[in-house]
Amino acid sequence: MREKYELVLRLWGEIQDLREIQQLLEWDLQVTMPPAGAEQRSRHLEALAAVIHRKLTAPALGDLLAALEASPRLDEQERADVREAVREHRRAVRIPPELVAEHARAASLAQQVWQQAREENRFADFRPHLEHLLDLNRQIAATLGQANPYDALLEEYEPGETEASLRSLFQELRPRLVRLLDRLRGAATPPGAACLQRHFPAEAQEAFNRRLAADLGYDFSAGRLDRSAHPFTSGTLRDVRITTRYHERNLGTALFGTLHEAGHALYEQGLDPEAYRRPAGGACSMGIHESQSRLWENLIGRSGPFWRHYFPLLRQAFPGLLDDVTGEEFLRAINRSQPSLNRVEADEVTYNLHIILRFELESALVGNRLQVKDLPEAWNAGMTATLGLQSPTDREGVLQDIHWAAGLFGYFPTYTLGNLYAAQFVEALRRDLPDLDDRLARGELRPVREWLRERIHRHGRRWPAPELCRQVTGNPLSAEPAMNYLEEKYTRLYCC
Amino acid sequence: MREKYELVLRLWGEIQDLREIQQLLEWDLQVTMPPAGAEQRSRHLEALAAVIHRKLTAPALGDLLAALEASPRLDEQERADVREAVREHRRAVRIPPELVAEHARAASLAQQVWQQAREENRFADFRPHLEHLLDLNRQIAATLGQANPYDALLEEYEPGETEASLRSLFQELRPRLVRLLDRLRGAATPPGAACLQRHFPAEAQEAFNRRLAADLGYDFSAGRLDRSAHPFTSGTLRDVRITTRYHERNLGTALFGTLHEAGHALYEQGLDPEAYRRPAGGACSMGIHESQSRLWENLIGRSGPFWRHYFPLLRQAFPGLLDDVTGEEFLRAINRSQPSLNRVEADEVTYNLHIILRFELESALVGNRLQVKDLPEAWNAGMTATLGLQSPTDREGVLQDIHWAAGLFGYFPTYTLGNLYAAQFVEALRRDLPDLDDRLARGELRPVREWLRERIHRHGRRWPAPELCRQVTGNPLSAEPAMNYLEEKYTRLYCC
Repeated sequence: MREKYELVLRLWGEIQDLREIQQLLEWDLQVTMPPAGAEQRSRHLEALAAVIHRKLTAPALGDLLAALEASPRLDEQERADVREAVREHRRAVRIPPELVAEHARAASLAQQVWQQAREENRFADFRPHLEHLLDLNRQIAATLGQANPYDALLEEYEPGETEASLRSLFQELRPRLVRLLDRLRGAATPPGAACLQRHFPAEAQEAFNRRLAADLGYDFSAGRLDRSAHPFTSGTLRDVRITTRYHERNLGTALFGTLHEAGHALYEQGLDPEAYRRPAGGACSMGIHESQSRLWENLIGRSGPFWRHYFPLLRQAFPGLLDDVTGEEFLRAINRSQPSLNRVEADEVTYNLHIILRFELESALVGNRLQVKDLPEAWNAGMTATLGLQSPTDREGVLQDIHWAAGLFGYFPTYTLGNLYAAQFVEALRRDLPDLDDRLARGELRPVREWLRERIHRHGRRWPAPELCRQVTGNPLSAEPAMNYLEEKYTRLYCC
Repeated sequence: MREKYELVLRLWGEIQDLREIQQLLEWDLQVTMPPAGAEQRSRHLEALAAVIHRKLTAPALGDLLAALEASPRLDEQERADVREAVREHRRAVRIPPELVAEHARAASLAQQVWQQAREENRFADFRPHLEHLLDLNRQIAATLGQANPYDALLEEYEPGETEASLRSLFQELRPRLVRLLDRLRGAATPPGAACLQRHFPAEAQEAFNRRLAADLGYDFSAGRLDRSAHPFTSGTLRDVRITTRYHERNLGTALFGTLHEAGHALYEQGLDPEAYRRPAGGACSMGIHESQSRLWENLIGRSGPFWRHYFPLLRQAFPGLLDDVTGEEFLRAINRSQPSLNRVEADEVTYNLHIILRFELESALVGNRLQVKDLPEAWNAGMTATLGLQSPTDREGVLQDIHWAAGLFGYFPTYTLGNLYAAQFVEALRRDLPDLDDRLARGELRPVREWLRERIHRHGRRWPAPELCRQVTGNPLSAEPAMNYLEEKYTRLYCC
């Protein structure tokens, strides 16, 4: 058994090496590749994906895993390794490679069509591609042998979660968000955001953001911060790179974008080096990953105590630009809640409503309760019902996100899971560190990072996300901590 | 046969894709990787090398090639593809993978030891590692079934060349170089280089070098220019990246370094896109590659006509810094010949003497006519005999280059082959473009680039290097054009 387990680790290590190369190729594509290199790069990615797929589906790996699965001699970490390897191996074996290839081709084409269709506001052009991708996703789900096809798709991004569990979570969340939003609408003096829209030179922003990332504990000797059109985090352990984008007329974009990506990066840098290259050595799930970015971006990074320490430093970083702004005004500006049509720019209160709408629509599409032809109408009805807004065109509406065009169904919910996990983790953190706010106000971020590393990061995929949540917080995931946090924070900020 | 040929192309295409990924990993390692990522990167490279080795040695590929080799139905390009694929496949099959792995490990360790030994000037520490590497290289040569082990090693870098052919070439070259050097030593007014040693800000250097590279025809939309400790060129066709390094007290370093790398890059960008991913689609040999870099760096880039156009622009690029320098003084400064201990900084006249010394020593080592323990003494004797210099320590002597520490024997001669090919190519170019100097003096570089593309670049590996030389110049490679060029140029510059 020992030998078989070691052999699985060896085989898995090679898969991990090649996946890290995949990530580097994607990073280079976004950050450094010359534009004319696109065609060659797509071949590189294709060649590498084929090699990885062959290794992941190797019958020899399957045989080893089958023997190990039945073995009672493994400890908890080893069982986790086997469980994770089995999950990935089975999934890869079940989905026929032709279907994977057709999905990749269709998604690549659909993204091009989507880009054009969005520009020209022509949903009709995109519709057949979306229908095709939806059909392929249903076919993929069918090969995975689960009763509910949406569950089968969801498992790719958030193992352990189901459509039913999400629905019950969101049913708890949605009415409380809508009620809070109603209250905020009635606030006597809503915050303004004008102080964030002055001219903040990108160089000065970058210097400040580098400092912030370093203060969070992001290790620049094992990472780097670059610019890219769409911010992202890439890599793991000792080579974890983040990107951001600068708007000189919007201080918040790069500032909170960098905190967000640094949160992702701290997770990757904080994984257990001993578990590196093992099946259960990586990050737990997309929802847990997102919890780490949201926690630093919002629960720490948009908090009063944090800015008690950092606002004076921010003023110094932009001489003269913020002298007329009080710390309280700044805090209200960065936390302003305002229903808008756009998910990416949404605030903490409205963001989850954008996600719930997308979850409802995509689960209905996958479950065949909604047709693609009726999607724009359903989108608009949902926007009106949740946020009271009507998209003037599909460009600002159903065409705004790339996810469906990229063939991703079941991905959206992980954003809200991230928000909920983050709030529940911070509730537990506050139990362990009752003087958290005082520490933040002194600029002490180390205790937060160490707590996250100790309680979350170093465990990797030892437990599925719902179990990790119970281990860390003592409770299953609930919308309660997030809503308590939002209600308390926004009642105070909006004085309502 | 058609089907078999197409199948070989498909298999080879995947190998090419993965090799391009290898190059990108190396580029990233030198240019962008965070320092802590080194360990992970070495795993990436190891995993990828294993995948490539498996594909290259696949028995199925061998069977296809054996069938194609015997086929009379292939055209010239197809025969070249088969010839090149056979050469690489056979070589990879013959060298046992354990020997490849041991060589890689030994070279990696030897480079670390060499670095330390060079710093501390302790050849004795490096000696056992060099002995081990030499032994491994002899073992590798023995598996390749050639009578002369040095020829077997040389074939990796310069197929078609032999120890005997190099020896006869160098016997022609060496006495004429020594005679020329003697004459230059007696010059009444040797040039000074002080005008290159003023303070040239790196930013301004970079801007000028970018312009130069673009003028040469380097396509920045299919490439990029970065900084790295050791300048190099990476990639092919539509993604070809160059690097350089800036010394603010030495204008020549980055200037001629960039011309050199741009020359390599023009070759890669100028390959036939139709032959891309085919066995004979890549660059011909290391010697031919080096000819392209040397041609732009030296034969064009250190010529009077070139600077007639560019010197006024150089002055503008560094306002006030070169106002007191005449074009003639500048030309003499960038062409100053001075025997020194260092190969990398050597001028056009002395450079080849450095190479000939290394060739003589390494061929004697491989041929068992020289022992590693006697190498420092032989090095010093050779330096005295050729350049009249004595290394004060082994650091400036036998320990100066990384090549042997990296396990590379048979690589050095390709540098001088590059110089000789470059001179012979330019001789042919002048026959086709009798007004070349007038064009250069008007800043017209396009005819040179187009000629190189048409006559050399687009042919890739259609012919082995010696045959390419005959096709392009009508003659086999000879030291005559290089010596005529050097004697004419230096006699004029040194007025001797």
